[in-house]
Amino acid sequence: MDNLQPKLQAVAADELRNRLAAILPAHSLIEETEAQRPYECDALSLYRELPLFVALPETVDQAQAVLRCCHALEVPVVARGAGTGLTAGAMGHPEGVLLGLAKLNRIIKIDPVARTATLQPGVTNLAISAAAAKYGLYYAPDPSSQIACTIGGNVAANSGGVHCLKYGLTTHNLLSIEMLTVEGERVTIGSPGLDSPGLDLMAVITGSEGLLGIAVEITVKLLPQPELARVLLAGFDSVRSAGDAVGAVVAAGIIPAGLEMMDALAIQAAEDFAQAGYPRDAEALLLCELDGTVEEVDQHIAQVSNIFSAHGATSLRISQDEAERALLWKGRKSAFPAVGRLAPDYYCMDGTIPRGQVSHVLEKISQLAEQYDLRVANVFHAGDGNLHPLIMYDGSDPAQIRRAEQFGADILDLSVAVGGAITGEHGVGLEKLNQMQTQFGEAELHLFEDIKIAFDPRLTLNPGKGIPILKRCQEYRALPGKHNHG
Amino acid sequence: MDNLQPKLQAVAADELRNRLAAILPAHSLIEETEAQRPYECDALSLYRELPLFVALPETVDQAQAVLRCCHALEVPVVARGAGTGLTAGAMGHPEGVLLGLAKLNRIIKIDPVARTATLQPGVTNLAISAAAAKYGLYYAPDPSSQIACTIGGNVAANSGGVHCLKYGLTTHNLLSIEMLTVEGERVTIGSPGLDSPGLDLMAVITGSEGLLGIAVEITVKLLPQPELARVLLAGFDSVRSAGDAVGAVVAAGIIPAGLEMMDALAIQAAEDFAQAGYPRDAEALLLCELDGTVEEVDQHIAQVSNIFSAHGATSLRISQDEAERALLWKGRKSAFPAVGRLAPDYYCMDGTIPRGQVSHVLEKISQLAEQYDLRVANVFHAGDGNLHPLIMYDGSDPAQIRRAEQFGADILDLSVAVGGAITGEHGVGLEKLNQMQTQFGEAELHLFEDIKIAFDPRLTLNPGKGIPILKRCQEYRALPGKHNHG
Repeated sequence: MDNLQPKLQAVAADELRNRLAAILPAHSLIEETEAQRPYECDALSLYRELPLFVALPETVDQAQAVLRCCHALEVPVVARGAGTGLTAGAMGHPEGVLLGLAKLNRIIKIDPVARTATLQPGVTNLAISAAAAKYGLYYAPDPSSQIACTIGGNVAANSGGVHCLKYGLTTHNLLSIEMLTVEGERVTIGSPGLDSPGLDLMAVITGSEGLLGIAVEITVKLLPQPELARVLLAGFDSVRSAGDAVGAVVAAGIIPAGLEMMDALAIQAAEDFAQAGYPRDAEALLLCELDGTVEEVDQHIAQVSNIFSAHGATSLRISQDEAERALLWKGRKSAFPAVGRLAPDYYCMDGTIPRGQVSHVLEKISQLAEQYDLRVANVFHAGDGNLHPLIMYDGSDPAQIRRAEQFGADILDLSVAVGGAITGEHGVGLEKLNQMQTQFGEAELHLFEDIKIAFDPRLTLNPGKGIPILKRCQEYRALPGKHNHG
Repeated sequence: MDNLQPKLQAVAADELRNRLAAILPAHSLIEETEAQRPYECDALSLYRELPLFVALPETVDQAQAVLRCCHALEVPVVARGAGTGLTAGAMGHPEGVLLGLAKLNRIIKIDPVARTATLQPGVTNLAISAAAAKYGLYYAPDPSSQIACTIGGNVAANSGGVHCLKYGLTTHNLLSIEMLTVEGERVTIGSPGLDSPGLDLMAVITGSEGLLGIAVEITVKLLPQPELARVLLAGFDSVRSAGDAVGAVVAAGIIPAGLEMMDALAIQAAEDFAQAGYPRDAEALLLCELDGTVEEVDQHIAQVSNIFSAHGATSLRISQDEAERALLWKGRKSAFPAVGRLAPDYYCMDGTIPRGQVSHVLEKISQLAEQYDLRVANVFHAGDGNLHPLIMYDGSDPAQIRRAEQFGADILDLSVAVGGAITGEHGVGLEKLNQMQTQFGEAELHLFEDIKIAFDPRLTLNPGKGIPILKRCQEYRALPGKHNHG
């Protein structure tokens, strides 16, 4: 699709450099290759690309000026938060500017009465809850990377986390966004009210991966910390029993704060790493957190215990205090680095499947692992059907890289085939661009493309990611008039 | 803006008629003026217009064929559900087709395990809960017109209701939509999962008032009926005290299932009509419904009672059973027809204001009533700041009509001036098109316009409603190429 990009070769990099240098302080413009290295990829390091320039604005005005400059010169702009994304969505463009927003990290306002926080995009996810804690409030979505990832990145990816089963994804916890358009215009999306006139653009912006605009101020909802939270750990002697138990919890009308599954390899890796007391001999493990008032939690703990026992749980442990709750979560939360110790590299996939398909899909994945001769550990947001297979490989072996990529693609195709989706919370980015055509029909893809063009007619915002730009766009771009670049 | 519409005079009405007659059974194509009368307005009868033709398809295929035909001939299409809208959003176009979807009224599927209902657009709001009741489930959004209004219309208007404070508007209760585009293509928007890849278009479609596409199949979430619901009725001797009590309930962290306010005139009208036992001497009344488990409801009822007493409630009554709960709601639910008995006509406005502005805004409205020499009764979704002033007038007196319209416009301007919005749940339609420019800046309006054009480049879907089409569009439309009609 390279021939669809603006003819960047025609842009004088010098002219761009001079304009950027006039906008940014010297330490905010990174030109040298070695200094750019930390920015060449996000957390999916299979894909790497150095941008022309890295711009790290310290004010919204500077960010706005960078966008205006790039718009005037038709230069691609890729926004980046902390670079913790897993789909190469924040990988730079070789002929463009990588716009890092990490320095815009001010907590503008916490309003404990309205229960909102207004934030610059570079504020980390965990910093929001930390700042809200003194009011007994917190921000619910909690990606595994929450210590590092930024709220701007969370908005771009519509991030989830173990608690999104009950409290929703980023999109369900946002009130309004101040966004810069590709032209550098500042627009307000959403409102503090329940409804607002005009088109509701919040959801289309959320999760749009920097393709439609760049958020520079974000107002999120805060929730009261629950009176009590307890976690229940159960081992099972088969994935099927654990999967059935998950379905039974949901069917009983209980919405746990989190409901996670791990398979045997993930359990062993996590236990070696975190010593959380996980049952090493179990084929599958469920972690179920219940929160609310003391009465609610007690009632739900009893119900879930019964359900797990009825489905053949081989072990059952309930956290008795906050320290034990943290310990039980520690294994799950360190599952990725724990698996990281088993192999030089791992590739974290992200597909969604109907809950009823868990055992079928895990069986298939196990067959694929044999076929590709690669090990895989499975960690799973079981409550909402979001599967994270961790494919282990050695990145120094090009053949293993290829096999890992193909294995990952097969898992996504499998997810679609059983009625699921190619992403649960990581987004599409560069990684899954081809799978968009597995997931969607032509009519839907055309609609996405039309909307992309409505926001960004010259296709300079994060080009080549998220939304396939189809052939007809080439025709479209060749027309004289509004969208012409010739 | 008439000069922005396609040059419909050039369309041969005969050609259109012949093509429609080939698509629809004879009884589904309404051509005669008198037979069209029931379709000339929605529930905002101040605005009336007869379309060229009324089409009432009985199958989705027929609806699709009508859209294809209109697209080919560049004829405007206005979709209509039950015509209960309050902003003339479903008023027909004099040179177009009014596409009534009321005959597509099949409940396609109720899935009690997934807790979803899949519906054709003409299913009435109340029919969903009626069909779900045997599984102990219901559909939460409950517009006052729920006995008549359709789920398709609810999607178009993003309808609310007294229970949306706790359970959200239509947009928060939808899972997916099958939509016909202006070209008659069928696209799937949304998915049953929590997240989905691609752009999340559900929210932008919901509330888009037939400007972007036409929903032909809608999957909604169903909720378990709460174990218990009780309602608390309190009289106050001033609007200010009642308003402060509302703020105190919300500040206490209680989210009532509904929290409604009525002023003196609305109380008296409702009591005359419904004999619900409302306190006739009160200056303001609050109705607060709490639902959940028995323990939760009891605890909240006690807390809210204390808050109301502390804010000077002059009377307090708590429903003791379902019959009493229904009676207490009966007054509120019949407030509109009750006010309708006080004057030949009334004009129901819909603005949203910050909760803290209630008494200030009601005082101003009372001054405006004197200035325009018209009576007004106020009914108010107090929990979410959604005000419904009912302006009484005599529709046989053109001067009163003009004064009522100006009074309404002043209320909307006032809402924006205090930090609120020109609509809470009724939408923009034709009625509030001018106020969109009070509410939004140029950058936001351009964005809305760009998205409208992305979905509907020829501007034939419900033209002249919802989104102001600004001057630049005229230039845009004059360009040769994709969007050209010449």
